[in-house]
Amino acid sequence: MLEELDEAECLRLIAPGGIGRIAYSGRYGPTVFPVNYRLFEQTIVFRTAQDSATDEDLRTGIAHAEYKVAFEIDDFDTAAREGWSVLVQGSAHHVDSEAERAAVATAGVDTWPDGDRELFLRIVPSRVTGRRVRR
Amino acid sequence: MLEELDEAECLRLIAPGGIGRIAYSGRYGPTVFPVNYRLFEQTIVFRTAQDSATDEDLRTGIAHAEYKVAFEIDDFDTAAREGWSVLVQGSAHHVDSEAERAAVATAGVDTWPDGDRELFLRIVPSRVTGRRVRR
Repeated sequence: MLEELDEAECLRLIAPGGIGRIAYSGRYGPTVFPVNYRLFEQTIVFRTAQDSATDEDLRTGIAHAEYKVAFEIDDFDTAAREGWSVLVQGSAHHVDSEAERAAVATAGVDTWPDGDRELFLRIVPSRVTGRRVRR
Repeated sequence: MLEELDEAECLRLIAPGGIGRIAYSGRYGPTVFPVNYRLFEQTIVFRTAQDSATDEDLRTGIAHAEYKVAFEIDDFDTAAREGWSVLVQGSAHHVDSEAERAAVATAGVDTWPDGDRELFLRIVPSRVTGRRVRR
């Protein structure tokens, strides 16, 4: 059974943060990477390393007005064959101003690899959809 | 520690099949959905419902030559903060011919939601990259 989820339920499901997947149109076509994210004031915040491929791709894209990205979060129980997925679509921007950086830093976005991932990126959702699969 | 994985290691990691995420440029911009996939003759095979939004978006895109999609597979241990991700980039096509359909059907692609998901889609990789994160 496949059930569509409303936006409020989607936001509730993704509120704890964790691992999500950022998708964008990169130099080799559609590109997807897992990142640690937090939901902060109804926006998605994550970090990446300056001058990484992700940074460069996003920076190139973001330079264009209305650069659209997608962010996907899901949780599945493969044994029970149940789970949910949420798709956030919206525009992405680098967090450049000191004030915004200080604000999003309070979200406590985690990163796993060592090294500086000093660049904050933020996705402002324009569309939030989700689905739940039950047996 | 972030380690780049070579293509052989990537293919070994994704060989068991399971849940992956298809990303493509859809009607609302970049779009990502989780699907059950199998690796079949070094291509990604999954199923979707005919006339679903995914089908329509992909059908529209695939009609253009060289329609690029991405497929992401990962496995993380959040407690240990370790895991890997693989990104397959390539072109997608519907499996339309009887012969190809019979072949990919042997891959045993599973679907969770009830109902017919009678449409097979196949991604022929042009680029396979991956990363492993260790503490």
